[in-house]
Amino acid sequence: MAKRDELAKIATRLRIHSLRMTTTAGSGHPTTCLSAADIAACLFFSEMRFNPRKPDDPANDEFVLSKGHAAPLLWAVYAEAGLIPMKDLSDLRKITSDLEGHPTPRMPWVKAATGSLGQGLSVGVGIALAQRLDKSPARTFVLMGDGECAEGAVWEAASFAAHARLRRLCAIVDVNRLGQSDPTMHEHDLAAYARKFRAFGWDAVTVNGHKIEAILEAFKKIGKRGKPTVILARTVKGKGVSFIEDRNGWHGKPLKSDELARALEETGCLPDVDARKLIRHPKPFRRKTKAAAVFAFPRTAYKEKTATRLAYGNALLALGKVNRSVVAVDGDVKNSTYADKFFEAFPERSFQGYIAEQNMIGMGMGLAAKGYLPFMATFAAFLTRAHDQVRMAAYSFSNIKICGSHVGVSIGEDGPSQMGLEDLALFRSVPGCVVLYPSDAVSAEACVEAMAAHPGLAYLRTTRPATPVLYPAREAFPIGGCKVLKKGPRDAVTVIAAGITVHEALKAGLELEKEGLAVRIIDAYSVAPLDAAAIAREVAETGGRAVVVEDHYAGGGLGEAVAGALAGKAVLKHLCVRELPRSGKPEELLERYGVSAAHIARAVRELAAG
Amino acid sequence: MAKRDELAKIATRLRIHSLRMTTTAGSGHPTTCLSAADIAACLFFSEMRFNPRKPDDPANDEFVLSKGHAAPLLWAVYAEAGLIPMKDLSDLRKITSDLEGHPTPRMPWVKAATGSLGQGLSVGVGIALAQRLDKSPARTFVLMGDGECAEGAVWEAASFAAHARLRRLCAIVDVNRLGQSDPTMHEHDLAAYARKFRAFGWDAVTVNGHKIEAILEAFKKIGKRGKPTVILARTVKGKGVSFIEDRNGWHGKPLKSDELARALEETGCLPDVDARKLIRHPKPFRRKTKAAAVFAFPRTAYKEKTATRLAYGNALLALGKVNRSVVAVDGDVKNSTYADKFFEAFPERSFQGYIAEQNMIGMGMGLAAKGYLPFMATFAAFLTRAHDQVRMAAYSFSNIKICGSHVGVSIGEDGPSQMGLEDLALFRSVPGCVVLYPSDAVSAEACVEAMAAHPGLAYLRTTRPATPVLYPAREAFPIGGCKVLKKGPRDAVTVIAAGITVHEALKAGLELEKEGLAVRIIDAYSVAPLDAAAIAREVAETGGRAVVVEDHYAGGGLGEAVAGALAGKAVLKHLCVRELPRSGKPEELLERYGVSAAHIARAVRELAAG
Repeated sequence: MAKRDELAKIATRLRIHSLRMTTTAGSGHPTTCLSAADIAACLFFSEMRFNPRKPDDPANDEFVLSKGHAAPLLWAVYAEAGLIPMKDLSDLRKITSDLEGHPTPRMPWVKAATGSLGQGLSVGVGIALAQRLDKSPARTFVLMGDGECAEGAVWEAASFAAHARLRRLCAIVDVNRLGQSDPTMHEHDLAAYARKFRAFGWDAVTVNGHKIEAILEAFKKIGKRGKPTVILARTVKGKGVSFIEDRNGWHGKPLKSDELARALEETGCLPDVDARKLIRHPKPFRRKTKAAAVFAFPRTAYKEKTATRLAYGNALLALGKVNRSVVAVDGDVKNSTYADKFFEAFPERSFQGYIAEQNMIGMGMGLAAKGYLPFMATFAAFLTRAHDQVRMAAYSFSNIKICGSHVGVSIGEDGPSQMGLEDLALFRSVPGCVVLYPSDAVSAEACVEAMAAHPGLAYLRTTRPATPVLYPAREAFPIGGCKVLKKGPRDAVTVIAAGITVHEALKAGLELEKEGLAVRIIDAYSVAPLDAAAIAREVAETGGRAVVVEDHYAGGGLGEAVAGALAGKAVLKHLCVRELPRSGKPEELLERYGVSAAHIARAVRELAAG
Repeated sequence: MAKRDELAKIATRLRIHSLRMTTTAGSGHPTTCLSAADIAACLFFSEMRFNPRKPDDPANDEFVLSKGHAAPLLWAVYAEAGLIPMKDLSDLRKITSDLEGHPTPRMPWVKAATGSLGQGLSVGVGIALAQRLDKSPARTFVLMGDGECAEGAVWEAASFAAHARLRRLCAIVDVNRLGQSDPTMHEHDLAAYARKFRAFGWDAVTVNGHKIEAILEAFKKIGKRGKPTVILARTVKGKGVSFIEDRNGWHGKPLKSDELARALEETGCLPDVDARKLIRHPKPFRRKTKAAAVFAFPRTAYKEKTATRLAYGNALLALGKVNRSVVAVDGDVKNSTYADKFFEAFPERSFQGYIAEQNMIGMGMGLAAKGYLPFMATFAAFLTRAHDQVRMAAYSFSNIKICGSHVGVSIGEDGPSQMGLEDLALFRSVPGCVVLYPSDAVSAEACVEAMAAHPGLAYLRTTRPATPVLYPAREAFPIGGCKVLKKGPRDAVTVIAAGITVHEALKAGLELEKEGLAVRIIDAYSVAPLDAAAIAREVAETGGRAVVVEDHYAGGGLGEAVAGALAGKAVLKHLCVRELPRSGKPEELLERYGVSAAHIARAVRELAAG
């Protein structure tokens, strides 16, 4: 049988599986599976090379389904390839099945969760960067929808990929003309897409996405011009089932059983072909000896006041020396986050992400999926730009590390647009995400070590101004711990602080001591997980009275974390930034917005007075 | 004096002001002001038409400084134009001054806060849409940096502007070659930018950004091709001061006083020219009678189970009938958010934003700045994509309304990528943002009315599945209120719920009643501001015992809001989604992730047992 015929038969099987699966599940997106079925057949059973026994074989070509709602098609491919049992297909979207509505790495062949559109290309860029670092000949394929090309993140990734000359990266856009609620902006104007990608430095190839030979021919052009390649495939949504083909109103809608019966009359029965025999295995390839999982590094000795952001830079550099898996990405602020120290020492492991935070985090997910340990930094305020990518990194179980600098009103004169005042809420809302917020350079370095060693998403919050050194050089700062910085038998109130407010709390403590009022002071450097037990114990010893003070907005920060942990066990006063701040000197702003030593002292006095 | 010479003199004055202001302030970005000084002089004192006495004159051409770090240049322009006193310039970045480090609308001429890069073009698109709705001949100018063109949001806006044929919109890119930490991706390759903008449907004009005549000539081409126009200006960062010109390492760095003295030797003294005389006034233009501020609308009568998202659609449609300022934007999910009802009735006031959430919110800011009342909707999960825009909308004091649908695990089979589980944290962290979360169709409609009438940022959280009607048709739902749904003299525990969990709480209440255990049930539909006083009162009456239950992650949601409000006054149990969920049926997921009636009943029993 000619290969063309075999692939066409596989495509038909993929269509039938997709239709049946979604009808059985009673939900899902069959029409978007049908438009991409021929592409998927050609890709997995002719163009890609992969070892069907090892999803993590470094020789494998990698695949990202950016249009995640075509998950049934992907599961059908896996079943046809023998990667999962055929019978699993009937469990689509069941709570007991890893064949979820949109792909997640609960399925080991999936390298990143998708379903929030426009993110897959960045992940693909990260994977391609990892393959290049590995000196691997493997390639990366990203299957995108046309609708998602409206997402800016796509163009951040496209710019970066061209700039980095990732010629082994191939995007395929399934241009099926229809979005969810309307036709797309460009409908079937493939030239419009081609112009955009070419302007962004890509080679663009247009093709009829339902002609097997044409698709195979297009694949031959990948990378031929030394650029990343996009294959723009003209397709028909619902292809193969006449009554849903190219019709608006069929997005995210399975066929009813009678409709399915009619559809299967058109497709015919499952054609007889063994797709597994068509799988093309890669030439064996081994990464050079993988870097050992070393996370401990020689610490800098600090005596003078030092900004925690500077300590982050020092720590990242030191970590990079002992662990070759560590890579850094920055959003054109590396001279402020101090990631530049790593960039200078390890240019080959450093990626200037320019001002494109979404792509920065997406690339990190790709790098992490291939075993690298990415540290990404920008101003904490601008991480809000990548909130959706952070969310998807959680669903991807990504082992990525993020540093947000310039937090709170303590940055001063640059004003509110540059102040990270919601980052704790952002990262605390991600289940399992570690959130560390050191107050001095020593703890900052220790936190970098802890987050590197922690397998999973971790966030470090660093401060712009220099702060005094509080801790001895070898002090340990485990994730989930806290430090009691001041303690006495007569403490009337516990002050719980983190970062810059630890120093305000210490000042307040000295002031109050003069008045004969003793306070306990806790450095809650591990904001998540919070050391709830220790904090509860200390607060209980001070009569259940506590002040929480943070350079962050009220919602979702340290104060609410403590309130949640101590509910019913303490009377709390919460000092935080409660209005939209403005430009000014750091100390003026700490005072004006209620998180200075003077405010802490006042709150303590009020609580102590009962 | 020839106009050219006058404008050159003004540009020199702008440079001198910018240098002096930043040196006096001791911080700021003088070099980026210097690169754009000639453009600014030509724009404000030759090309733009505005009434210097009325920042809100609808005849005014509008201006957005997307590269917000050039704020000193903008303040200098305002001083030269006589919009603010010249002496105010020496107060740059002081806590007492509205001349902040980055522009905010504390200054009435500023239409949107900038400083988070890549957002100004979307705001400009929104303003241009408003001008078109007004049938105004006025134009909109957006001054951008080259570095920020790496932001995907720029390309979302560019796509939309071309698609909407906004020929009165003009972007000017100050291509000064240098970012903060490195040269930009394209440096001085103006053709690279031109290719991108042209591919995105714009007319692109390249020009030497320091040649006055050339700049004026370029302005003549605006809109000539019926497209939005971008003027790509080749400039030199630090232009006019030899020792900082085109040098890396001078971003965000003021001159020291001795350096300033040297710089002023090069620029010379302030040239003698009265810029105010060059201001070109617009022809008078009046908007047609502005729509009255009517927010009350005839409500739908609900009897059957109805999804709150559907009620949102009904309410928006009804609101649109009584208030012509209401406009709608949607991110290609209007058939799911039910914004499509408004779209069908009012196509001229409806904007298909496609899958580009950042631009959707940015356009809303622009529309609101011109007096429209934009309602924007998408899945709550995808609003994380626009977190930074929401943040900047707060600093812009934008009167925008946002609806996030498909929240929580209750969406079911589509899986975690589609579940809004962090949206309460996102919006609660914004000071002053109203957050409403109705449990039934009646309260959903009332919430739409309340958020429309509220002057400022407001968020509505809607649910996918249909829920029973709980309230009588005319019930009022004021912002900051709550409803006690079940109350008796022997209540042992208060259950605080919102949205879908109100219904689970009611089920649990019935179940517990059979066991002889009475519970009080509160519908906390106003999540922010929370009705802390009423909740505290009710909880006190049930022995200080409360269960909070929400279909949201633990961090920053209703549970922590209640914990913060009741700290020390109650023993709380917090039921919420504590792990990364998966696909499944809604009721299975509510059960598995601990927020079902059964879980509520168990928590109540435990609390009641003490």
